[in-house]
Amino acid sequence: MSELKLPSRSEDFSEWYNQLVIRAELADYAPVRGCMIVRPYGWALWENIQRFLDRSFKATGHLNAAFPLLIPRSFIDKEKSHVAGFSPELAVVTHGGGEELEEPLVIRPTSETIIGHSFSKWIHSYRDLPLLINQWNSVVRWELRTKLFLRTLEFFWQEGHTAHATLEEAEAETRQMLNIYRDFAVNEAAIPVIPGRKSASERFAGADETYSIEAMMGDGKALQSGTSHNLGQNFAKAFEIRYLDKNGELQHCWTTSWGLSTRFIGAIIMVHGDDQGLILPPRLAPHQVVIVPIFKSDEEKLQVMEAARRVRTELVASDLRVILDEREGASPGFKFNDWEMRGVPLRIEIGPKDVQKGTVVLARRDKPGKEGKSFVPQTSLSDAVTQALDVIQKALYDRALHFREANTADPKNYEEFQAAVEKGFAYSFWCGSAQCEQNIKEGTKATLRCIPLDQPDGKGSCIYCGKQASEKAYFAKAY
Amino acid sequence: MSELKLPSRSEDFSEWYNQLVIRAELADYAPVRGCMIVRPYGWALWENIQRFLDRSFKATGHLNAAFPLLIPRSFIDKEKSHVAGFSPELAVVTHGGGEELEEPLVIRPTSETIIGHSFSKWIHSYRDLPLLINQWNSVVRWELRTKLFLRTLEFFWQEGHTAHATLEEAEAETRQMLNIYRDFAVNEAAIPVIPGRKSASERFAGADETYSIEAMMGDGKALQSGTSHNLGQNFAKAFEIRYLDKNGELQHCWTTSWGLSTRFIGAIIMVHGDDQGLILPPRLAPHQVVIVPIFKSDEEKLQVMEAARRVRTELVASDLRVILDEREGASPGFKFNDWEMRGVPLRIEIGPKDVQKGTVVLARRDKPGKEGKSFVPQTSLSDAVTQALDVIQKALYDRALHFREANTADPKNYEEFQAAVEKGFAYSFWCGSAQCEQNIKEGTKATLRCIPLDQPDGKGSCIYCGKQASEKAYFAKAY
Repeated sequence: MSELKLPSRSEDFSEWYNQLVIRAELADYAPVRGCMIVRPYGWALWENIQRFLDRSFKATGHLNAAFPLLIPRSFIDKEKSHVAGFSPELAVVTHGGGEELEEPLVIRPTSETIIGHSFSKWIHSYRDLPLLINQWNSVVRWELRTKLFLRTLEFFWQEGHTAHATLEEAEAETRQMLNIYRDFAVNEAAIPVIPGRKSASERFAGADETYSIEAMMGDGKALQSGTSHNLGQNFAKAFEIRYLDKNGELQHCWTTSWGLSTRFIGAIIMVHGDDQGLILPPRLAPHQVVIVPIFKSDEEKLQVMEAARRVRTELVASDLRVILDEREGASPGFKFNDWEMRGVPLRIEIGPKDVQKGTVVLARRDKPGKEGKSFVPQTSLSDAVTQALDVIQKALYDRALHFREANTADPKNYEEFQAAVEKGFAYSFWCGSAQCEQNIKEGTKATLRCIPLDQPDGKGSCIYCGKQASEKAYFAKAY
Repeated sequence: MSELKLPSRSEDFSEWYNQLVIRAELADYAPVRGCMIVRPYGWALWENIQRFLDRSFKATGHLNAAFPLLIPRSFIDKEKSHVAGFSPELAVVTHGGGEELEEPLVIRPTSETIIGHSFSKWIHSYRDLPLLINQWNSVVRWELRTKLFLRTLEFFWQEGHTAHATLEEAEAETRQMLNIYRDFAVNEAAIPVIPGRKSASERFAGADETYSIEAMMGDGKALQSGTSHNLGQNFAKAFEIRYLDKNGELQHCWTTSWGLSTRFIGAIIMVHGDDQGLILPPRLAPHQVVIVPIFKSDEEKLQVMEAARRVRTELVASDLRVILDEREGASPGFKFNDWEMRGVPLRIEIGPKDVQKGTVVLARRDKPGKEGKSFVPQTSLSDAVTQALDVIQKALYDRALHFREANTADPKNYEEFQAAVEKGFAYSFWCGSAQCEQNIKEGTKATLRCIPLDQPDGKGSCIYCGKQASEKAYFAKAY
C-alpha cells in the first residue's frame, strides 16, 4: 500500500501531490477522462467539511433543497456574462429515452439559472424575502487540463443561492458567507486565508462583485478556496425575479451565490502534507487517532490487545474518532507508514512495556521522530489526547501561516515583484487598471488573487505603471 | 398558501396527491419535463430519512463514497440483462466543451457498472473483502409518465454496492439491507411493509435475486419502497471483479446492490395523508411541533409571546424539533390550516387563558377536532409532548396496518382474486409459473409484488391455474 516512498515534495510538488492522492486512497481516476472517484477516506473527509459548513449555513437561516441537474440550454443564454463564461464548458445531452431531444439540455455547470427560474415562481412579495437556499450536489464543467480535487470535469460542492429586497442586504449576505468560509478554513482546516475582492477580470460570470478566500499552497502558489458572489440584479432581470414591496410596487430582487467545493481537499493536502504523505487537521480528520498495538508473542498480544481495546473504548466515549489497527500480518512499521501516508494526526503505540508501566506512546504526525513523541499514563488518556489534538491543530495553522508570511513579499519595484511571484505572493499597490493586471499576467503568469478586505491606510504607486494607487492586492501564480 | 381545500382523497386520490405535494411545498415541477425540484420542506424530510439510514449503514460497516455521474456508453453494454433493462431509459451526452465526443457518455441510471469497474481495480485478495460502499446521489432514467417523488427523470437516492467472497455472504448482506429498510419503514416512517422476494419477471436488470419491501398506499395500490439485489457473479464476470483466495486461486466476487429513494416520500404522503393535507410521522417530521400563539390585544400578545417563547426554549432543550409561528398578519385559523397541510404532527396553542391557567392546548394532527385536543400544564411540558409524539407515531402505524389488513384478501378463487386487487392486496398461492403471473397481469393489471419471506406452512393451489403451489405471494396494482 505505502511501501514505496512518495516523490519529494520539494523536488516535484505536482507528482508528489498526484501520488499522494492515490496512495492515501483519497480519490481515484474515473474511466471518463477528467472525472474523479472520491474514495471512502476522501469522502469521510468531505463529510466532516460538510458537517461544519451545513451547521453554519443552517445557523444563519439557510435551508437545503435540491434542483435538477438537467437545465434547458436556453437558460444559460439568458444572462449575457453567464453564457460567455460557461458556454465553452458545457456537457450537452442531446438524446433521451432513445430519441433526439427537441431542445438540447445541459448538465448544470452551476445553478444560478435554474434556481433563478424557481425563485421567480416562489417570490411574490417582500414577505417572501430573504429567500436563503443551499444545495449539496455536483456540477460538470468541461475542463481540458484536470487534476484530482483541484480541477475535474465533475466536482462536488455546495452552492448557496439567495434573494433579497435590497442591494445592501445582498452585499451583507455575500460578506457573511465569505466570513463563514474564512472561519471554516482557519478554525477547522487550519489554513490561513486572505479574504478579499476579485478584480473585474477574475469575477464570476454574471456577478457584480466576487469575493474569495485565497490560500498559499506548499509550493507558494495560490488556491482560490471558496467564493461568494454579489450578483446584483443581473439574474433577477434575466429571470424576472421580482417582488411587491411594502408600497405595492414591483421590484427586482438582488441575488447572491456562494460555493465551496472538494477543491478544498486539494488545499488541505497541499498546505499540510509532507514527504511522508498527508497531514490532516484534527478537527476534520476521519480518524483523529490511530492505535497501533505492538507485540511479538501470543501472550504479549493478549495483554496488549486488551489494553488497546480499553483505550479505544475510553477515547470513543470522549467523542474522539479513533481507529484500532488490528490488521494481521502487517508489521507495526508498515502500519506507522500507512497511517502517516493517510495523515492521521495522532498515533498511540501500545507495547508490552507500556502495559506493564500503564503508559502509552503518543506520536504526533506533524513532528517526525523523537521530538513528536511523548509517554503518557493510560489514566485520563482522553484528556491528554484531546490536548494533543488541540496542540496539533494550532501547530498546523501556525506553520502554514509562518510559511505564507515567509513567502509573501512587499516588493519595492517590478523587478522584486517578478522575483516574489516566482516563490510566493506579492502584496502590492495596484492602480485598478485591467491593462496593468493583464500586463503582469502576461509577463509573470501571476494573476491578481484578491484585493484584501483589510487595507493599509494611505496610498502608494502601482507596482506596474507607477501611477497613484489606493489599494493593495495580492498577486501570485495560481491553481 | 393553503386557503383552498384539497380535492377529496377518496374521490380523486391522484389529484389529491398532486396538489398536496405542491401546496405542502414539498416539491415543484422543473422546467425540464419530468424533473423535480425538492423544496426545502421536502428536502428536510429527506435529510431526516438520510440521517437514520446513513447511521444504520455505517453501523453495519458501510463506507460512503462518490462515483461520477458520467459513464461510458459501452459500460452499460457489458452485462446483458442490464443493457436490456436500462438502454431504453438512458440520457446521452454527445457533446462536451463544444465538441462531439468520440464515445457518447450516459448519465448514470444506476451505478453497478462504474462501481464494478472500480471494484475490479481495488480488490486483489480475500483480505480486501467484503468491500461495503454506499453513495447518496441522483440518477437519471428517461421515464415517459412521471409523477412527483414517485417517478421522475432524475431522482435522489442512496445506492449501496458490496463485494463478497462467497454467495452466502452476499445473500446475507442482501437480506441485512432489506431488514434495515424494513426497520426504517416500520419504526421511523410508521409504514407497515411486507419484505419479500421478487418473481423473475420483476427482478432488477442484472440481479439473480431481488428483494423488496412493499407497502399499501391509501388507495389500496402497492408501492415498492426499497429494494435489495443479490447480483450473483453477473457484474463480477462482466467487470472482472476477482480476488485471490486463501489458496492463492483467482475467484470471481459475489456482489450486491440496494437502494431507497425519494420515492419513499411519496409513500409517506400516500399512507398517512388526509383531506387536510400531509401527516408526518413524528420521527421524520422536519417540525415535530408547531406553536401557534393566539391573541387579540397588544397586551395579550406580550403575555402570549413570552409564554410561547419560553415553551419553545424548553422543548428545543429537550431535542424536539419545534417551530414557533410568529407570522404577522396571518390569523390563527390560517396558521392551523397551513401547518395541517404541511403535516406537523403536534400543534401547541397558547392563548391568554392558557397564560392565566399555566396550560397549553395540544392538538394532534392525526385526530381532527376535539378528540385530538388536550389541555396540559406548562410545567414539564416536554415530557407531555414527547409522550404525545410517541402516541402519534404508534397511532399512525396502527392505522396504516389496520387499513392494509382491511384491504388485503385471501381469495378462495380467481373471481374473488379479481375483486380483491380492485381494492387492495390479494395474498394467494402461486405455482411459480411466469405464464400465470403474466395472465394475471393482463387480466387484472395486478402484478406480483413479492413472495413474502414469512410463509405459511403447507401447500395450496395456484390462484390462477389451480396446480399445486408451495408459496404464497402478494398481488396488487402498483405505482
